[in-house]
Amino acid sequence: MRTLKKLALAVSVCFASQLSYGAESDRTNIIFLIGDGMGVAYTSAYRLFQDNLATPELDKTIFDEMLVGMATTYPDDHNQVTDSAAAATALATGIKTFNGAIGVDAQHQPVISILDKARELGYLTGVAVTCQVNHATPAAFIAHSDSRQSYEAIADQYIDLKINGKPKVDLIFGGGQEYFVRKDRDLVKEFEAQGYKYIDDINKLRKVKKLPALGLFSTGGLTPAVESDHPLRLAEMTQKSLELLTQKSAHPKPFLLMLEASQIDWCGHANDIACAMGEMRDMAETMKIIKQFIDANPNTILVATADHSTGGLSLGAKGRYQWEARVVRNIKATAPSIARQLLDSKANWKTVWQSLTQIKLAEDEQKAMDALIVQANENNQEFISGQVTAQVLTFFDKYTSTGWTTKGHTGEDVQIFSYGKGKETFQGAMDNTDIAKKLFTYLK
Amino acid sequence: MRTLKKLALAVSVCFASQLSYGAESDRTNIIFLIGDGMGVAYTSAYRLFQDNLATPELDKTIFDEMLVGMATTYPDDHNQVTDSAAAATALATGIKTFNGAIGVDAQHQPVISILDKARELGYLTGVAVTCQVNHATPAAFIAHSDSRQSYEAIADQYIDLKINGKPKVDLIFGGGQEYFVRKDRDLVKEFEAQGYKYIDDINKLRKVKKLPALGLFSTGGLTPAVESDHPLRLAEMTQKSLELLTQKSAHPKPFLLMLEASQIDWCGHANDIACAMGEMRDMAETMKIIKQFIDANPNTILVATADHSTGGLSLGAKGRYQWEARVVRNIKATAPSIARQLLDSKANWKTVWQSLTQIKLAEDEQKAMDALIVQANENNQEFISGQVTAQVLTFFDKYTSTGWTTKGHTGEDVQIFSYGKGKETFQGAMDNTDIAKKLFTYLK
Repeated sequence: MRTLKKLALAVSVCFASQLSYGAESDRTNIIFLIGDGMGVAYTSAYRLFQDNLATPELDKTIFDEMLVGMATTYPDDHNQVTDSAAAATALATGIKTFNGAIGVDAQHQPVISILDKARELGYLTGVAVTCQVNHATPAAFIAHSDSRQSYEAIADQYIDLKINGKPKVDLIFGGGQEYFVRKDRDLVKEFEAQGYKYIDDINKLRKVKKLPALGLFSTGGLTPAVESDHPLRLAEMTQKSLELLTQKSAHPKPFLLMLEASQIDWCGHANDIACAMGEMRDMAETMKIIKQFIDANPNTILVATADHSTGGLSLGAKGRYQWEARVVRNIKATAPSIARQLLDSKANWKTVWQSLTQIKLAEDEQKAMDALIVQANENNQEFISGQVTAQVLTFFDKYTSTGWTTKGHTGEDVQIFSYGKGKETFQGAMDNTDIAKKLFTYLK
Repeated sequence: MRTLKKLALAVSVCFASQLSYGAESDRTNIIFLIGDGMGVAYTSAYRLFQDNLATPELDKTIFDEMLVGMATTYPDDHNQVTDSAAAATALATGIKTFNGAIGVDAQHQPVISILDKARELGYLTGVAVTCQVNHATPAAFIAHSDSRQSYEAIADQYIDLKINGKPKVDLIFGGGQEYFVRKDRDLVKEFEAQGYKYIDDINKLRKVKKLPALGLFSTGGLTPAVESDHPLRLAEMTQKSLELLTQKSAHPKPFLLMLEASQIDWCGHANDIACAMGEMRDMAETMKIIKQFIDANPNTILVATADHSTGGLSLGAKGRYQWEARVVRNIKATAPSIARQLLDSKANWKTVWQSLTQIKLAEDEQKAMDALIVQANENNQEFISGQVTAQVLTFFDKYTSTGWTTKGHTGEDVQIFSYGKGKETFQGAMDNTDIAKKLFTYLK
């Protein structure tokens, strides 16, 4: 929690001096924050997870402060449940499309995103995410592809597609080195040749003094928050992005910043509740930083939403009327990481389990785990590791009373949160495409 | 659907003539509609369920029109998932309490409900529900008990607790004859002695010409909507209630009407998706009737919400990115009722299954069901019937791609819908107790 307080302090010092920002007061800064997979159960769970137990009242969250509406998420077929690509295309462009589609419509034709439009109008643009930067959600704002799996081709488009002779995005923070530095092309070098400052480590953020900038902090996605040295890495990247996008300039420009708490979804796919709550904290702290920014720079609109829900998460399961936030709070790593550490510690696994989870297992549960760990050997390490992970998750669900219906996505509506200029625009129920359509009207 | 159109017509004719109602324009009519167990997944599912397939767009619902906010539902212990009694007490009185509590606080002391307050101020009051009228949700508005299970004692209070010398509620519609006509007391006779018109059949609604009135239409809860001759029975009771509460009078009074689509929750407990959608249609049609009423009588506020979510319902499950509204639409009865009919039809079960569900089973599924039905005999009819019901539900979930995590309640936030005078009061995120607190401010 120390990191958290330090960060909040840094932010308040930093933004207080920028009250004068926003000379172009007729043009609005846009911050669009997506919590990938963040269905209603995630924000409800987070409220219990973050509660200060020293106070009798259940503490409200930043989500409670900013809730304004809800959105439907289905792709171009009503009965289908969306994937992140179709949902991101809807949110970025206002167009419904098929699952897997990145910035193309149902006829496979490229469509214009709010980032494209902002860029055409001379906005500064930024993207900061906790997955690889060329993953489905950010990609739908920048690239066009029939397949979200075309990671390299999508990364290529980040520099090849130009608006007014320059790459579309002034600031790119996240993961994905493996897609940018390749045998056939070194996109990092190409970005540097275009004047981008490149950093390969989140600890070097302070070394970025001006735009344009590219930061790729890991080969694929960033380390999960729950076991990261930078558990608030989206918040950190957001703070830095806002500083860079609002630097004093002779010709100040408005900005569009696209952010994603990408791994809420990954934790949901893994059915890993502690993992999910780590990502939710990063999402919530990011929203607090944005709130402070908007309080100092009211000519800004924040919209935060989810692209869909993941996992069919419920608080309470199997007939139990309880959800044990206390247990979730004490879990220190993702289930696969705990499984790996248990296997490494061999006979000593109980000590490691205790320190990583503080969950006291029943005798038969200890025996089951013992058997698995004794079984483990070089020949089928991966298989056993998968079994241990599954066992760990079963214990998490039992002791926290968490329910899941799927390792995939589900089709329930998601919440819309908004703050700043014209937030009432996003009140009530709407389709996910309406969010993009409303954001387009801000751009002029 | 014919009933539905007839009903809508009747309503529009009926309310059009009442434009002049509301002489006491400084006092607001309150309609509080609770969808028991109606979590977010239920309204999302209903949108797909009710969609007119002849139009390309997904049709919006009355829920979409009226969404304004969301509410937390936890009882007096944050980590607990609420039951319907604690949630109803919160919604009726603004006080958090323990699970099982009816109109009493955590210290077991009686607390005042919005219905009590309205009555003290001279409002007309009404309650119409699809469960027994002395079930937890309506009971929390009228009675006080440490235990929701004290059904007879709660029913007694409906006539024993008086305000200004008269029973608290002028209009009571729902089920529950067995609790009102008993060996020790005949509450129906007692109500009649107090001037109440009593009817025991929903078909006799038109015979009620004025208040006070008591209608108990079944021994326990009403027949589930999906297999009822009156699938829109809450809508019917609501229409009649609004007529009775707004009859011309020399001394017109404002009213408070508490309504509950009680069995959404029961279908959720049963994990029966077709059952749930039947109840959702009744809830939605009830909201449409109220909307027409408020358009003609703008001095009225509707708040509709859920007390909690039930079942951990998700659209899509087990990795499938699909939810088959089409399949749900063709199911004609609840799972236990289908099981009973299959068992009764013996070797002929496939024909009955086809006509009740239109689901084409795979060969191995047919064999499994065949085996169960052949097994059935007089000795263990009930056990086999339970097994057939479970099998039917498994087929429903598979062919509709529906997920469930529990046969109980879950702790996610629920939606708030509002329409009419001051609906903006209910915008944003709040606690369930805040809804009651805000409704109290309407009462003067």
